[in-house]
Amino acid sequence: MRLMLLLTAVGMGAAASYAIAAEELRQTAREHFQPIPAEPPQLPGNPITPDKVELGKMLFFEPRLSESWMLSCNACHNLATGGVDLQETSIGHGWHKGPRNAPTVLNAAFNVAQFWDGRAEDLEDQATGPMMNPGEMGSSAERVMGTLRSIPEYRERFKRAFPGEADPLKLGNVAKAIAAFETATLLTPNAPFDRYLAGDAGALSDRQKEGLQLFVEYGCVGCHYGTNVGGARYARFGEVQAPDGGLVPETDQGRFTVTGKPEDEYVFRVAPLRNVALTPPYFHSGQVWDLKDAVAIMGRAQLGLELTGEEAEAIADFLTSLTGAQPQIAYPILPVVTGDTPLPKPFDNP
Amino acid sequence: MRLMLLLTAVGMGAAASYAIAAEELRQTAREHFQPIPAEPPQLPGNPITPDKVELGKMLFFEPRLSESWMLSCNACHNLATGGVDLQETSIGHGWHKGPRNAPTVLNAAFNVAQFWDGRAEDLEDQATGPMMNPGEMGSSAERVMGTLRSIPEYRERFKRAFPGEADPLKLGNVAKAIAAFETATLLTPNAPFDRYLAGDAGALSDRQKEGLQLFVEYGCVGCHYGTNVGGARYARFGEVQAPDGGLVPETDQGRFTVTGKPEDEYVFRVAPLRNVALTPPYFHSGQVWDLKDAVAIMGRAQLGLELTGEEAEAIADFLTSLTGAQPQIAYPILPVVTGDTPLPKPFDNP
Repeated sequence: MRLMLLLTAVGMGAAASYAIAAEELRQTAREHFQPIPAEPPQLPGNPITPDKVELGKMLFFEPRLSESWMLSCNACHNLATGGVDLQETSIGHGWHKGPRNAPTVLNAAFNVAQFWDGRAEDLEDQATGPMMNPGEMGSSAERVMGTLRSIPEYRERFKRAFPGEADPLKLGNVAKAIAAFETATLLTPNAPFDRYLAGDAGALSDRQKEGLQLFVEYGCVGCHYGTNVGGARYARFGEVQAPDGGLVPETDQGRFTVTGKPEDEYVFRVAPLRNVALTPPYFHSGQVWDLKDAVAIMGRAQLGLELTGEEAEAIADFLTSLTGAQPQIAYPILPVVTGDTPLPKPFDNP
Repeated sequence: MRLMLLLTAVGMGAAASYAIAAEELRQTAREHFQPIPAEPPQLPGNPITPDKVELGKMLFFEPRLSESWMLSCNACHNLATGGVDLQETSIGHGWHKGPRNAPTVLNAAFNVAQFWDGRAEDLEDQATGPMMNPGEMGSSAERVMGTLRSIPEYRERFKRAFPGEADPLKLGNVAKAIAAFETATLLTPNAPFDRYLAGDAGALSDRQKEGLQLFVEYGCVGCHYGTNVGGARYARFGEVQAPDGGLVPETDQGRFTVTGKPEDEYVFRVAPLRNVALTPPYFHSGQVWDLKDAVAIMGRAQLGLELTGEEAEAIADFLTSLTGAQPQIAYPILPVVTGDTPLPKPFDNP
């Protein structure tokens, strides 16, 4: 395509040809990418209501859903810092170092599945897993539910969020409320790239447009497409050429552990790239802090391309245009415990 | 005083005498306690401005001021849960169990000094200590300042918060900004007790008034007075009778470690009781979860009184009237790191 644009430019005045080439790039982009929609998606079987979203927010920030009372969803998916913890791999119960880098919760509703290995089909399926993971929040379903049942305000809020249900306070509804909060609230619309897709050609700088063109031309877009510029399919890390060993630890076989299929060894969900400039370090192993370096590594490992420094920089610069308006969250006030609330056990091995 | 009120009641109609006794109780209360003021206090040498308060909020929630990037001021002083962590004693860097229960940051501006041992004279003096404590946030002044200097948005915000200063980005200003945020924002006005002090006799229930009367009559008010119903002076835990050993660990000699004076052994700042119903567990050792139990222990240890179950309950019920309107905080969006930002070191012994 680059060649074609150059040829077109030969026969015309520079300004006109530039305008045509620019418009062509934008049209190409619109084929590959979709903006963050103005309205949040609907969740089948989980209607989004203000009561449910507010409850989900409280649960997202609720440290008493962890064994220690020190960790909440927000501990690893900090909404102050791009929905991630900025750790190589996450730190959980007892300062346990987890196996993978925390993916952002921002715009997670648009991913094909959740977790790096896609083991949860959606946010509802994902939301309560980390609560029970011994190396994450370290709790149990019994403790989580015992805690919520012991607090009158939660009993009341579950009733209001799930009206008409005989037993609204159940683990499935904890997941539904958190998924509703995430889907309705944790979106980052109005990124420069979204404004560009919508027709504002000046929303991207020239170098960002150059980066976008390379992103399309070199084939990054073969995996990184759709609303989240990724997150829509799976790929082996090292499709063309194995990256440095530290980036793909042998012990983490990725999607293979979910499907058991040999072709899924070291396969991971393609990283969604929205807000990627906010969420270092990169890759499931979290070893790379510089976005340009991450781009260069991807070029080599996935496409067999040795990008020049300028090309990697231009692509990284384009990726910064995916940073959208961060969600404005009123920090919740959580209800007080009662004599029936199971006490924190920060030093128990759960 | 109780006797006097009863005698007064003999010579009058019951309703009139009740009204007089009730008004007398309220007047007595107004001599001992002050409401949370409508306007935040001024800080000498640290004028409170919107830019400074906003910066202070960001720093309060900033995990990158810790060695690990996992802990912020809010980790132990969670504004979702009464400005505390609800832990026996706080958990810090590397899951280190600290020596004392975290005091609330709410209304802390009205305390005579900060920390259980009063070693910081005010919030500005307090704010950066935990950042450098190896068992708390585990960082160093050099790292804290290196982190903030590496981030352009912080450089800009310090300039705006401290206009006219040649070098606004310094540790002293980190402390000043956090102190300004806490002083301007972390207040809980309009508690039922404040409305009662202001003249709304119905703001307290009859049992709460009974508890207030006992609180005054039995002498709790001798230590727990002023705006924060405590926090205004020091006292030995076990003034009259040593409490159970676990409540006053021998290894923590309290204010003695600050002053070196023998009379300060096992002396602590009197706990401020505003929002006390939100901040279990109680005492510097954090062993007691039930407010009634804490009241009974205080009666025995400090006053040599064996309160009846009903009396302890009435006092505890009065103490719940000290729960004020919790601060409404817009969760901050923190700026992204740069290539110059010192990386997190969660597993280094600082």
